[in-house]
Amino acid sequence: MRILLVGATGTLGTAVHQELVARKHDVVTVARSGGDLQYDVTDPAQVADLYKTVGQVDAVASAAGSVPWRPIEELTIQDYQDAVTGKVLSQVALVKEGLTHVTGSFTLITGVLTREPVVTGAAASLANGAVEAFVRAAAIEIAPLRINAVSPTVFTESLDVYGDFFPGMKPVPLADVAQAYVRSIEGRQTGQIYTP
Amino acid sequence: MRILLVGATGTLGTAVHQELVARKHDVVTVARSGGDLQYDVTDPAQVADLYKTVGQVDAVASAAGSVPWRPIEELTIQDYQDAVTGKVLSQVALVKEGLTHVTGSFTLITGVLTREPVVTGAAASLANGAVEAFVRAAAIEIAPLRINAVSPTVFTESLDVYGDFFPGMKPVPLADVAQAYVRSIEGRQTGQIYTP
Ligand SMILES: NC(=O)c1ccc[n+]([C@@H]2O[C@H](COP(=O)([O-])OP(=O)(O)OC[C@H]3O[C@@H](n4cnc5c(N)ncnc54)[C@H](OP(=O)(O)O)[C@@H]3O)[C@@H](O)[C@H]2O)c1
Ligand SMILES: NC(=O)c1ccc[n+]([C@@H]2O[C@H](COP(=O)([O-])OP(=O)(O)OC[C@H]3O[C@@H](n4cnc5c(N)ncnc54)[C@H](OP(=O)(O)O)[C@@H]3O)[C@@H](O)[C@H]2O)c1
Repeated sequence: MRILLVGATGTLGTAVHQELVARKHDVVTVARSGGDLQYDVTDPAQVADLYKTVGQVDAVASAAGSVPWRPIEELTIQDYQDAVTGKVLSQVALVKEGLTHVTGSFTLITGVLTREPVVTGAAASLANGAVEAFVRAAAIEIAPLRINAVSPTVFTESLDVYGDFFPGMKPVPLADVAQAYVRSIEGRQTGQIYTP
Repeated sequence: MRILLVGATGTLGTAVHQELVARKHDVVTVARSGGDLQYDVTDPAQVADLYKTVGQVDAVASAAGSVPWRPIEELTIQDYQDAVTGKVLSQVALVKEGLTHVTGSFTLITGVLTREPVVTGAAASLANGAVEAFVRAAAIEIAPLRINAVSPTVFTESLDVYGDFFPGMKPVPLADVAQAYVRSIEGRQTGQIYTP
């Protein structure tokens, strides 16, 4: 398949990229400052431009999304808005603008904080919960196009950076998270939240 | 208890108001254009002003939140942003600004669309999912203050307006939804999503 991978240069994106290439897919990689194409997906106009440049693809996979982490007393309304802009509306725009360019599926990234909160993660939880509910809702309206989310806990490979925020929570190896993308892209289910 | 009820003049708010008064609570009612106090909770500055005016309360209950309903092909990024402004950030602001004025609990309003999507409800689903994940996250950081969400399906009393969007889904009487607010306010649980 021809697959557009957004956030392809990050910790997660690199692992997904490697696995998709290993499975003989033709992957077009996107990031703000690396990859095949440079676009900022928090800007809906750039997302529209991106699809115009890329043309038709079988699948879109997103591994990009940034949110502020702060104790709840310090999180401002602007921080919550930044989480929405950085992880929710950016991924919604990939779906919205992609409806006329994608023939198969969308796979979005969320995370365990939808279900299991951690201290300083309230804005991240809010963003993940928004994306997961959107995925379930979009699925019934965009069929036969499909849409799923991958909702992992902290990556084993990110424990040095984020481990302190997830005390006693079992991490997941990136290889397993990449398989959730494969399952979403090559499988036939829709409206699913995969928790690798 | 002294309870601040936002959205007190609406379909839901009126039912919650009646039940809280019947249970001998002292209820301060808020809406943009009715109730004891007129404030627009989508403006964080007005939310801060509201608490300055009201002073200390035992509980805050929200029954206000508006979102655009449209087929997914017609929903614009601005529509999703409006849903976030109208139902998510407004209720987050009630919690954030309330941390120094509330001694007991916050009860927010979401809806069944978090779990069960319906056609034209993608922005509503996104907003509800955001609020519910925020509630779970905030609960662990604001303790001993408590926070819960009430997440009802369509109200029996709203079937004439919204019934067509919920084919075959059993409606819930407002009296049962009002009891979920009572349970949240007078009970001791936190981080719960009550589905009356
Ligand atoms: N790390 C974990 O343990 C973990 C666990 C669960 C979920 N997640 C989620 O997984 C996602 C990726 O995490 P990660 O640790 O792999 O992050 P990361 O290493 O920072 O990678 C982010 C990737 O997205 C790109 N990117 C960021 N903002 C972008 C934008 N506006 N437009 C286009 N590309 C953009 C980055 O490249 P540029 O900077 O060049 O744009 C990079 O390629 C995040 O949403 C995170 O919440 C992570
Ligand atoms: N109706 C249903 O079947 C149903 C089912 C599940 C969930 N819900 C949810 O329940 C909530 C209430 O629904 P409803 O049908 O009772 O709505 P409604 O009848 O339109 O009532 C909304 C109430 O909130 C007030 N309000 C609206 N925006 C406000 C703002 N920015 N600042 C302050 N007050 C504001 C309104 O008064 P003003 O206009 O004067 O401000 C009114 O008192 C909504 O979030 C809805 O999604 C409804």
